[in-house]
Amino acid sequence: MNSNPIIKGKLVCVALNDAQQLAAMQAEFNQPPYKAAPTQPVLYFKPHNTWNTDGAAIEWPAGETDMVVGASLAVVIGQECCRVSTEDALNYVGGYTLLHDFSLPEKSYYRPDIKGKCLDGSAPVGAAVVAADQVADPAALTVVTQVNGETVSELPMTQLERSVPELISIISCIMTLQAGDVLAVGFRGERTPVQRGDRVTSAIAGVAELNNQLAD
Amino acid sequence: MNSNPIIKGKLVCVALNDAQQLAAMQAEFNQPPYKAAPTQPVLYFKPHNTWNTDGAAIEWPAGETDMVVGASLAVVIGQECCRVSTEDALNYVGGYTLLHDFSLPEKSYYRPDIKGKCLDGSAPVGAAVVAADQVADPAALTVVTQVNGETVSELPMTQLERSVPELISIISCIMTLQAGDVLAVGFRGERTPVQRGDRVTSAIAGVAELNNQLAD
Repeated sequence: MNSNPIIKGKLVCVALNDAQQLAAMQAEFNQPPYKAAPTQPVLYFKPHNTWNTDGAAIEWPAGETDMVVGASLAVVIGQECCRVSTEDALNYVGGYTLLHDFSLPEKSYYRPDIKGKCLDGSAPVGAAVVAADQVADPAALTVVTQVNGETVSELPMTQLERSVPELISIISCIMTLQAGDVLAVGFRGERTPVQRGDRVTSAIAGVAELNNQLAD
Repeated sequence: MNSNPIIKGKLVCVALNDAQQLAAMQAEFNQPPYKAAPTQPVLYFKPHNTWNTDGAAIEWPAGETDMVVGASLAVVIGQECCRVSTEDALNYVGGYTLLHDFSLPEKSYYRPDIKGKCLDGSAPVGAAVVAADQVADPAALTVVTQVNGETVSELPMTQLERSVPELISIISCIMTLQAGDVLAVGFRGERTPVQRGDRVTSAIAGVAELNNQLAD
């Protein structure tokens, strides 16, 4: 199994954090059983067997025909924090990098989708971590993703429903964040379908680039 | 933060695996949006910040009035396995011990309950790991839990909807299990409410005992 030297503790991803997607889903949220949009960030874990690196080939899951990918700014926690304020949150960031989340397409956002999210090697993080003091404001960053050289998504961090400091504050009230924990702060609502052999490249200009290829 | 030398990779818990509870919930499962009982095991992770040990005091979560506990047989994986058969599954077990899952009471089984399940230090595992070859058949074990010396639950492993080898087989098809991963295979449907200062002790006769006390 691969692992990743950047991630030391846990890898937490934030779902449903694209403000455009949330706006488009209002009607669906108003259906039973919830009858309202989520009031808190929707989180999921990518466990140890998913951790992977820049340049790694992504295994195609046995017996599956469809896969999708999303890219996210990845915040690497630099210092343990618990119940920090939004104002103070960025002081606990060690640095920034990128994450690809390869998964099975989600059929419903109701049930926790453990099967689709826990594929071996499906969460490459990297390549380099840019130190927090090199990034004046994470809200100024944009994640651009290309498949086989063609741009498939652009997500400016200003489009996140909850910002990086808001998320660190809220998540640190749910669980202590430790040095070497990684938060993937948000994906474009529409994940991108991928095929065997596809090359997936994400970049944040001047900060990070992450390259992976689906195995044949 | 505490950690636990037994758990090296991930700690995976199986929810809704008490056959009695499932039978009682049939009517609820038949409601929208599912209209059927889950066809696959319902899994959740206890992340790194939750890992804790025998004898540890369990922190009371700030701002919360209610907590519950469940106990489970904990299966420690001894050897990496992926897509193993039920027949072969027990060959990958390194040993057995106990887990306490302290959590907030669940209000709904619909939304993934990250907040309730990820409390710091809420997943003690231990004390000792009994080697797999000392346990002829995990189905013969019973987990007995006492609060302040009074028995509050007994769960014979024959009451699990899915057995230990079935779970290892199914979960190893979803994600590779690695040496030092721990699976909590099932809890009594009704979790037990606990108060500040309560002593929680679980035992599997001749195999393991786990003691924790809620902080005042």
